[in-house]
Amino acid sequence: IKRSFSRIWKFFEKAWSVAVDDPKKVIHCLKVGFALTVVSLFYYMRPLYDGVGGTAMWAVLTVVVAFEYYVGATLAKSLNRVTGTFLAGFLAVGVHWVASQFGGDIEPIISDISVFLLGSLATFSRFIPTVKARFDYGAMVFVLTFTLISVSGYRVEKLFEMARERLLTIVIGTCFCILISMLVVPAWAGDQLHALITLNMDKLAKSLECCITKYCDNLDETITTKSDNYSAKDVLAYRCVLNTKASEESLANFARWEPGHGSFKFQHPWKQYLKIGAAMRSFAYCIEALNSCDENQDSGHMMNTIGKIYFNLSSSSSGILRELARSIKTMTKSSKMDVLVEQMNYSVEELRDFLNHVPGFSNTETERKCLENEQNKASQNVVSLLEVIPIVSYASLLIEIASRIEDIIFV
Amino acid sequence: IKRSFSRIWKFFEKAWSVAVDDPKKVIHCLKVGFALTVVSLFYYMRPLYDGVGGTAMWAVLTVVVAFEYYVGATLAKSLNRVTGTFLAGFLAVGVHWVASQFGGDIEPIISDISVFLLGSLATFSRFIPTVKARFDYGAMVFVLTFTLISVSGYRVEKLFEMARERLLTIVIGTCFCILISMLVVPAWAGDQLHALITLNMDKLAKSLECCITKYCDNLDETITTKSDNYSAKDVLAYRCVLNTKASEESLANFARWEPGHGSFKFQHPWKQYLKIGAAMRSFAYCIEALNSCDENQDSGHMMNTIGKIYFNLSSSSSGILRELARSIKTMTKSSKMDVLVEQMNYSVEELRDFLNHVPGFSNTETERKCLENEQNKASQNVVSLLEVIPIVSYASLLIEIASRIEDIIFV
Repeated sequence: IKRSFSRIWKFFEKAWSVAVDDPKKVIHCLKVGFALTVVSLFYYMRPLYDGVGGTAMWAVLTVVVAFEYYVGATLAKSLNRVTGTFLAGFLAVGVHWVASQFGGDIEPIISDISVFLLGSLATFSRFIPTVKARFDYGAMVFVLTFTLISVSGYRVEKLFEMARERLLTIVIGTCFCILISMLVVPAWAGDQLHALITLNMDKLAKSLECCITKYCDNLDETITTKSDNYSAKDVLAYRCVLNTKASEESLANFARWEPGHGSFKFQHPWKQYLKIGAAMRSFAYCIEALNSCDENQDSGHMMNTIGKIYFNLSSSSSGILRELARSIKTMTKSSKMDVLVEQMNYSVEELRDFLNHVPGFSNTETERKCLENEQNKASQNVVSLLEVIPIVSYASLLIEIASRIEDIIFV
Repeated sequence: IKRSFSRIWKFFEKAWSVAVDDPKKVIHCLKVGFALTVVSLFYYMRPLYDGVGGTAMWAVLTVVVAFEYYVGATLAKSLNRVTGTFLAGFLAVGVHWVASQFGGDIEPIISDISVFLLGSLATFSRFIPTVKARFDYGAMVFVLTFTLISVSGYRVEKLFEMARERLLTIVIGTCFCILISMLVVPAWAGDQLHALITLNMDKLAKSLECCITKYCDNLDETITTKSDNYSAKDVLAYRCVLNTKASEESLANFARWEPGHGSFKFQHPWKQYLKIGAAMRSFAYCIEALNSCDENQDSGHMMNTIGKIYFNLSSSSSGILRELARSIKTMTKSSKMDVLVEQMNYSVEELRDFLNHVPGFSNTETERKCLENEQNKASQNVVSLLEVIPIVSYASLLIEIASRIEDIIFV
C-alpha cells in the first residue's frame, strides 16, 4: 500500500513539474474546458438546438478531437476534418442516389461494396508519405463520414439532411476551436520552432566551450580561470540536439498551416529551419566524438601552446554560434558576423600551422620520451587535438549554410 | 495543365512503390475494408439492429478510429477506448444523478462545470509523459464520452441506457478490430522492432567495413581486392541508424501491448531493444566522425602497415556486429562471440602498439619530409588513424552491452 501511495505521490509531483515548467500548457487545458463548455451550450439553448437537431453532438466531438496545443495543429486538424467530411458526405450521398436507382435488395450490397473499396483506398492513401504528413487525419475522417452516411442510408430517410447537418455542426465546432485557440493566449508552433532552434544553437555553443574548457583545465590553470563555471550538465547539453529531428519536423509541419503572426509572415520559410536543424545535428555529432575522445587524456608538456589555440578556436566558434542565435532571434542580419568568421578562420590557420610544425621540428626528442613514458596517452592527446579539424570544418559549413539562410529569411 | 498531370502521375507512382515495397500495407487496407463491411452489417440486419439500437454507429466509428497497422497499436487504442468510455460513462451518470437531485435550473450549470473541470484535467493529464506514452488516446476518449453523456443528460431521458449502449457498441467494435488485426495476416510491432534492430546492426557493420575499405583503397591495392564491392550508398548506410530513435520508441511502446507470438513471449524485454538501439546510435556517431575525416586524406608511405591493421580491426569489429545481429535474429547465444571479441581486442592492441612506436622511432625523418611537402595532409591521415580508437572503444562498449542483453533475453 505504501509503495503504491508513493507512486501516486510521484505521479502528482511530475504533473506539478509539468505545470510549473510550462504554464502555457495549463492555459491550454483551461481553453479546452472553455471551448467544451461553450459548445455544450448548443445543447441547452432551445433555438440553437432546433437549428441543428440531435446532431449537435458532432460539434462537441469536433472540439474534443480537433483542439490541439499548437494553433497550427488545430488549424490542420480542423481543415482536414471539414474537407474530409465534405468530400465524404458528397460522395456518400452520390453513391446512395445511384444505389437507390437499383432499389430493393441490391441497395445494401452496393453501399457495402463502396464502403469496402473507399475504406481500403483511403486507408492505403495514409501510407503515402506526402499524404501522411499533411492529410492523415483528413483521410481518416473521410472514411468515417463516408461509412457513417452510406450505412445510415439504409435506415435514415432524409440522408441529405443528415449529411448537411453533420457538415454544419462540424464547421461550427471547428470555428470554435480555431477562434479560441488563435485568440486566447495562442501557442504558435512557429514561435516554438524558432525558439527551439536558437536555444539549441546556444546549447551547442555552451557545450563546445565547456568541452574545451574541461579539456584545457587538465593542461593549464591560467587559461581557464576566466571561464571555469562549467558543469557536467553543460558539457552534455549537445545531447538534446541529437534527437530533436522528429519534434522539429512536426513543428515545421504545423507552422506551415499557421497564418502570419508576430514577426512571421504567412509562408515564412519554415523549411529553412529544418536545414539549420540538420546542420546543427551534424555539428553535435562532432562534439560527441570530441567528447568521447578526451575522457582518457593526460596533460603533455607541449599542450600549453596547443591549449591556447584550442581555446581561441573554440571560443571563436562558439562566439559565431551565439551571434547566429542572436541574429536569428532578432531576425536581423548581424554586422559582426564577418569579423567573427575571419577570427575563426585565423584560429584555424594558426592550428594548422602549429600542427605542421610540431611533429617534425619542435619536439621529436621530447615527444619520443613522452611516448615512452606514457604509453599511448600522448597519442590520445593528439587525437583530440586533430579532431578539432572536422569540428572546424563543420563550423564553417554551418556558417555557410546559416549565412545563406539569413539571406533567404531577411531579403 | 501538363504540369499538374505529371504531378498526379508522380503521386500514383509513389503510391505504387509504397504498395510494392511493403505488400503487408495493402493487406492492412483490405483488412480495414473488411472490418468496416462486417461492422456495417449490424445496421442491415434487423435482429442485431434491434439489440443495440441507433447507437450502432459507434461500432463503425470505433473500427475506423481504432484499427491500426500494428497489432500492438490496435490493442492499445482499443483498450484505451474501452477503458476511457467505461470510466467516463460511469462518472457522467454519477454526476448527472447528483445534478438531478438539485433539479431544475441548477442541473445544466452543475453538468457544465463538471465538463469544464474534467475536460481541463484530462487534457492536462495528456501532457504528463507517462500518460502521454500509453494513455493519450484513452484520456481523449474519456473527455469525449464524458462531455457527450453529461451534455445529453439534459435532453435524453434514458441516460443510463445511452451510456450502456455506447459502451456495448464500442466493445463490439473493438472486438472486431482486435480479432481481425490479430487473426488475419497480423503485423506485429515486436517483429518489426526485432527486424529493425538486426537490420540496422548489419547496416552498421557494412558501413564500417566500406568506410575502411574506401579509405584503404587509396593506400594499397592488394588489401582491397577481396572486398571492393562497396558503393557510396553502403558507406552512408549508417545514416539510417542516426534517426531511428522515434520509430524504435513507438514500436517498443506498441510491442509492450502485444500478447506472445512466434518466438516472443508475453512481456518480452522490449526495453532492452531500446538500449541496443541507443548503443548503436552512439556507434553510428563515431562512424559519422570517421567518415567526415577521410574526405581529404592522401596516401602516405607508412600507411601500408597501418592500412592492414585498420582493415583487420574493422573487419573483426564488423564481424562481431554481424555475429551479434545473427544471434539476435535467431535468439541463440553465439558460441563464436568470445573468439571474435578476443580477435578484436588483439587488433586493438596491435594498433596501440603500432601507434606507440611510430612517431618516436620509425619515421621521424621521413615524416618530417612528408609533412613539409604535403602541408597538413599527413596530419589528417593521422586523424583518421587515431580516430579508430574511439570507434573501437565504442565497439567494445557495444559488445559489453549486447552480451549483457543476451544474458537477459536468453536466460
